[in-house]
Amino acid sequence: MPLTLDYTCLVRGGPQGEAGVDPSALDRAAILHSSVTKALADKRAAGRLGFLDVPDDGATVEACLKYAESVHGRFENVVVLGIGGSALGTRALHAALSPPLHETAPRNGRPRLFVVDNVDPVMVGGVLRTANPGTTLFNVISKSGSTAETMSQFLLFLEAAKHTLGEHWREHVVVTTDGSKGFLRPFAEANGLKTFTVPENVGGRFSVLTPVGLLPGALLGWDLRALMRGAAEGRDRCLSPSFGENPAAVMAAAQHLLDVESGVNVQVLFPYSHRLRLLVDWNVQLVAESLGKRTSDGQGVGPTPHGAVGVTDQHSQVQLFAQGPLDKVFTFVRVLHHAHDIAIPAPPAGLEDLGYLKGKTFGQLLDAECRATQLALTDAGRPNMTVTFPEICAESVGEFLMWNMVATAYAGELYGIDAFDQPGVEAGKVATYGLMGRKGYEAEKARVESARISDPKYRVT
Amino acid sequence: MPLTLDYTCLVRGGPQGEAGVDPSALDRAAILHSSVTKALADKRAAGRLGFLDVPDDGATVEACLKYAESVHGRFENVVVLGIGGSALGTRALHAALSPPLHETAPRNGRPRLFVVDNVDPVMVGGVLRTANPGTTLFNVISKSGSTAETMSQFLLFLEAAKHTLGEHWREHVVVTTDGSKGFLRPFAEANGLKTFTVPENVGGRFSVLTPVGLLPGALLGWDLRALMRGAAEGRDRCLSPSFGENPAAVMAAAQHLLDVESGVNVQVLFPYSHRLRLLVDWNVQLVAESLGKRTSDGQGVGPTPHGAVGVTDQHSQVQLFAQGPLDKVFTFVRVLHHAHDIAIPAPPAGLEDLGYLKGKTFGQLLDAECRATQLALTDAGRPNMTVTFPEICAESVGEFLMWNMVATAYAGELYGIDAFDQPGVEAGKVATYGLMGRKGYEAEKARVESARISDPKYRVT
Repeated sequence: MPLTLDYTCLVRGGPQGEAGVDPSALDRAAILHSSVTKALADKRAAGRLGFLDVPDDGATVEACLKYAESVHGRFENVVVLGIGGSALGTRALHAALSPPLHETAPRNGRPRLFVVDNVDPVMVGGVLRTANPGTTLFNVISKSGSTAETMSQFLLFLEAAKHTLGEHWREHVVVTTDGSKGFLRPFAEANGLKTFTVPENVGGRFSVLTPVGLLPGALLGWDLRALMRGAAEGRDRCLSPSFGENPAAVMAAAQHLLDVESGVNVQVLFPYSHRLRLLVDWNVQLVAESLGKRTSDGQGVGPTPHGAVGVTDQHSQVQLFAQGPLDKVFTFVRVLHHAHDIAIPAPPAGLEDLGYLKGKTFGQLLDAECRATQLALTDAGRPNMTVTFPEICAESVGEFLMWNMVATAYAGELYGIDAFDQPGVEAGKVATYGLMGRKGYEAEKARVESARISDPKYRVT
Repeated sequence: MPLTLDYTCLVRGGPQGEAGVDPSALDRAAILHSSVTKALADKRAAGRLGFLDVPDDGATVEACLKYAESVHGRFENVVVLGIGGSALGTRALHAALSPPLHETAPRNGRPRLFVVDNVDPVMVGGVLRTANPGTTLFNVISKSGSTAETMSQFLLFLEAAKHTLGEHWREHVVVTTDGSKGFLRPFAEANGLKTFTVPENVGGRFSVLTPVGLLPGALLGWDLRALMRGAAEGRDRCLSPSFGENPAAVMAAAQHLLDVESGVNVQVLFPYSHRLRLLVDWNVQLVAESLGKRTSDGQGVGPTPHGAVGVTDQHSQVQLFAQGPLDKVFTFVRVLHHAHDIAIPAPPAGLEDLGYLKGKTFGQLLDAECRATQLALTDAGRPNMTVTFPEICAESVGEFLMWNMVATAYAGELYGIDAFDQPGVEAGKVATYGLMGRKGYEAEKARVESARISDPKYRVT
């Protein structure tokens, strides 16, 4: 069963009152919808929006499944070396589709997953100590094939694998990278390593449904065919020319209008689900890197994607959400059915006041808190919408991924920026190369080291 | 060695340019400092700010250590049942002070820690399946002694413990709660359970240095005496009457001025450390619940605390941070020394382009990226400050906790709100009770169930 979207509490004059999108502005957005979809269709025709075609790529799914089948039972650990778009989607799907606490108590003969998306020596060292190369598959993922963080990790784990495995290290390394660019592919080919390809026209933050996420998924036993089927269905709904039937168009238009007309620019994704919690981090990258841009006239635009998890954040952020500034819009994610629900036992003597919990399930409590919080924020005048998952499964998660990716692409058109580049991260990369002494960056090294950014007057020591 | 604060790039006309705090406003804040500290001193004298005295409570530290000693080696798992302030501090300290990946590979005879801070049946069920009651200590933590989420978990784990252990269940449950309020304490006393007390005048989000965080810490082997020593030193620095020597006063004043004078109200805590990453979540609750308030004239105020982790978020959020709207202020956390650093190996044939990494350590790369990103955001005109940890240890973490708690208390005075209540979460609680059918909430049940918050016109199905 597909996802549903309810945005009643997002429209001005609705149950939440005056904060919200002007209905007439929404009508204008509906009229504009055809030109927005046209702009996207043009980009797609020009070959720039590969992520829209990925769900139809059954051959890649089968290739990942075939490889996983060929190594089934051989590995206790899968270590993903990747960062940003090479890590966040896999993390999110692992939380949603693998059993909880899988790393502490692996089941069904599936390996544990470790995603190394930092260069902190404590994190890197922890994985090095935990995952014996003899029983580990290393999947190094870098679209560019030159990401400094990923490559430095690769050097370390490569050395460890060679040390433990000798010539057999090659069977423990799989490379996921661009089809031609970067020096990771030639290295893989020279060493006869198994490789998978990130399509050239799929950016990192849109790549979860390429081998970037599919290969770890195949190894961990997610239902990849259902994931892709859900994504394809989501894609089709989100390309609908009918604005009112197109969830991505509605989400993008409403959130964009709230930002530019009312200054409501903090977008809180608020899943009531432990399993969906890391979709928040995935979405943060998707929105931040796609929409946080300078427009052609030099102005900085873009919402701040922010996260919360129900019920946990009721005890952390809901005070701010309910009574703080009117600068936030909320997307609740409600889950109707939990595959493995648990009954709350009857209270023993002395805890009779908890009798109201008896006979209910944890799923019912979670859902009651979701409904209660949505109502409380609505009563507090806070614009919000709700995405409902009939259940959490590969298909519904795949659909949700696609909703967010297409909505982000639409929002890029509405903001008038390029949602598919990331020029703002270049300066930091170059400065890092300078500080690390990379050849060709000597001038940058001198510049960075002589930068005067600390004044004793403004130091507390 | 104590922490340092550098806010050079936060002052208008500094290296970051025009976005920042007006130096003359900062001068006025320095003059106002005595009245702010006076207001806080009055609250402290009235007994409301227990968190300031907690670091001197050596007796509680010793009691926690004594209990931990008495059960040393008996438990493979510690399961904390708690949410919000009963969970976030412990999670943060565990990430900072326990070995990495401890749950997957416990070391030094220390138990694994599971913090159950949601009622999602998948999370609850995962812990139930993973932590055998026969080798598990359950620490149920609820200051009020009636938190619905925590108590429903408690009913479940209590039943499991009785089932496995019979009458011996009592040796596997420790209760941390208020000294007199709530029905958890009488239950504990009737059953002869070990109890610890959350001081009445220490709110949940300020309670990490009470038995809430100390007892798990004692069981896991953190250096509690150093933690408290660092907190005491931090507290003393943060109560200094000299504005320029008081890190909490400077942080609070600068961030408050950026918010009210320039609309810079997204506060990004950006530690370059995997170990310090969960301090972000702890700080989010501290700031959001303390400062997200309605003022006496009904206006919603308060910054949005937001998080990022270096280097990971360079590949996720830095694009937005560098080029998006000028609505954010950044607090970098830089770590000078890593106890266990790792050298990056020399690249093998075919990867010679990575030669620049050779001979460096992961810690050096992490630090170069921190400096590079701080410079890049400064060059992009983004106000920022840097807290420097000489190293990550119990003492420095304790000091940092106190900086943030005192800064939040100061900010409460500057915003003119009560930083120690949370009236905005009540409506959701009451609605939940209604939906769960709690006695006495029948009218609320009727109200919630008849609320018209969904219009078919605004549904995408």
